[in-house]
Amino acid sequence: MIQVAVNGFGVIGRRTADAVAKQPDMKLVGIGKTKPDYKARVAAGKGYKFFVPKKDHQGIFSDAGIETSGTIDEMIEEADIIVDATPDNIGILNKGLYQKIGKPALFQGGQKHDIADLSFVAECNYDQAQGKRFVRVVSCNTTGLCRVLSPLDKSFGVRRARAVLTRRAADPDDTKSGPIDAISLDPVTIPSHHGPDVMTVLPKIEVITMAMKIPTTHMHLHSLIVSLNESNLTQDRINETFVEAERVRLVSSADGVRSTAQVMDYARELGRDRGDMYENIIWSDSVTVFDEEVYFFMGVHQESIVIPENIDAIRAIFGTSSKEESISLTNTTLAIPH
Amino acid sequence: MIQVAVNGFGVIGRRTADAVAKQPDMKLVGIGKTKPDYKARVAAGKGYKFFVPKKDHQGIFSDAGIETSGTIDEMIEEADIIVDATPDNIGILNKGLYQKIGKPALFQGGQKHDIADLSFVAECNYDQAQGKRFVRVVSCNTTGLCRVLSPLDKSFGVRRARAVLTRRAADPDDTKSGPIDAISLDPVTIPSHHGPDVMTVLPKIEVITMAMKIPTTHMHLHSLIVSLNESNLTQDRINETFVEAERVRLVSSADGVRSTAQVMDYARELGRDRGDMYENIIWSDSVTVFDEEVYFFMGVHQESIVIPENIDAIRAIFGTSSKEESISLTNTTLAIPH
Repeated sequence: MIQVAVNGFGVIGRRTADAVAKQPDMKLVGIGKTKPDYKARVAAGKGYKFFVPKKDHQGIFSDAGIETSGTIDEMIEEADIIVDATPDNIGILNKGLYQKIGKPALFQGGQKHDIADLSFVAECNYDQAQGKRFVRVVSCNTTGLCRVLSPLDKSFGVRRARAVLTRRAADPDDTKSGPIDAISLDPVTIPSHHGPDVMTVLPKIEVITMAMKIPTTHMHLHSLIVSLNESNLTQDRINETFVEAERVRLVSSADGVRSTAQVMDYARELGRDRGDMYENIIWSDSVTVFDEEVYFFMGVHQESIVIPENIDAIRAIFGTSSKEESISLTNTTLAIPH
Repeated sequence: MIQVAVNGFGVIGRRTADAVAKQPDMKLVGIGKTKPDYKARVAAGKGYKFFVPKKDHQGIFSDAGIETSGTIDEMIEEADIIVDATPDNIGILNKGLYQKIGKPALFQGGQKHDIADLSFVAECNYDQAQGKRFVRVVSCNTTGLCRVLSPLDKSFGVRRARAVLTRRAADPDDTKSGPIDAISLDPVTIPSHHGPDVMTVLPKIEVITMAMKIPTTHMHLHSLIVSLNESNLTQDRINETFVEAERVRLVSSADGVRSTAQVMDYARELGRDRGDMYENIIWSDSVTVFDEEVYFFMGVHQESIVIPENIDAIRAIFGTSSKEESISLTNTTLAIPH
């Protein structure tokens, strides 16, 4: 049993803790958290243990009726590995702590590539993670792009990929972000960081991205234009590649899915925890070929797409399962079909 | 003086009426309208004459304190030309009326290409409009694309243009449209109608468009990826082409414009009627070259971008001004700089 500590309990930490608790080969040591809010209270009800930065935080938690089990330092001592899911500016500070205690750690995609020894997407570079001290699970958008560009490259060879990212501006629990009624170029300059970030995982694929933020909370929408090295492409051949790909779900307008809202409703119908959609969503009827270019729409559920990758990265570091075994086990526990 | 009647008084009709009233060579005969609402009341205060479908509508208007000047048939008799700005499903019905009375008419981009003898953008095909009975001023997105693709083609030769259209879902006065919190693919299939529509004006340029609707009211945002027939492209050379282009305004993040909200605020600062932005907005610092491809962001103010084209189309049909004279006069009256 791999002893896993989760430090930070926001969008990613909460989901990773639940996913760890579902793995037959992992045990959730506990959660590092600074504030005793509704998220902590719900998780305490599940029997999760909470660890706080300093002894004097314990009083704040006990005043809120939540028991604590020690300090974050003590949690780390107990763990084999730490999943750092703290805010972007905190993770880099925690790295020193993990180094001092000599434990491996996962960081999230909000951190820079060079915080870790490897930027990770299970399907693309699982085997390279073994024995690494620090691994960065790349961001939701980068994960989404890697999951489709890697199989397209294997099947047809990618000459150049271009993606326009229409990004949700705020997560559902975020009431301070905007815009309310505008399209914000984020950034105005091209490329956005996403293309270069994909190349930290897939260095041989050229990816150019343009990004904007818009007033939705649901998902990111990628409009992809990919030049391939084959000329006899068809919609069917491209869709077959997506069917074979891991963690990619095809939807269609004929099936009633025409927007991100219906994707999220679909996830709730499936009974997913928190209504999460771990898979890339590709509209099969959007897939269109012009000469050697394929065009399609893809949805990325920003809150959950990286959760399976966090689980796989843990096994990849310890080398306790092969890539295929880990992906299959993670998928089964999270009810992701293939 | 060209006697102009405006039939329909929604987003385009209101603006066209005001623009006609500003032209030294045109006279606004009046406005065809069915309901005596706040828009009619404000316009009546400007001295505009209202004409109604049937005699018995006059009572409804007089009950609302708005005087009427006759029927729409009578308005058409008085006019040299009719600008039809009625809803999409009505314009096609009106065509028979204009034909019967033997008057030329302009239709808007919501109508199909084949309603008219020519789909029109001033910079692209002004001279072809002379003597035509029915001319269609293409939609806001098509107008925006034509205004930039035509000069790019003249300067460098366009091999293929691709545009992802992030579309405002509702105009500011529209309280019934959605989505509230989603990205709606509109349509899921590729290409959207915009690319083929550009080719009704610029038949030699291949344009492939993908479109979605999002929860804003402000503007459409185009993410463009254009393959050109030159290899020594630079940001400066592309921006020089845009500086020379008609009705294209360059903005930049350094100047504080990073979103559609700031573009609209800018238009209000300029003192424009209704806060309108008639020009294509191009972010000069987004213009980026990768080999023979140029990437950039462009904003399109859906409510107003076609207004100068409606004015020019009137002169183009009668041949009373050259293309250059008409564009210059329209720009001066609407305070559009070159």
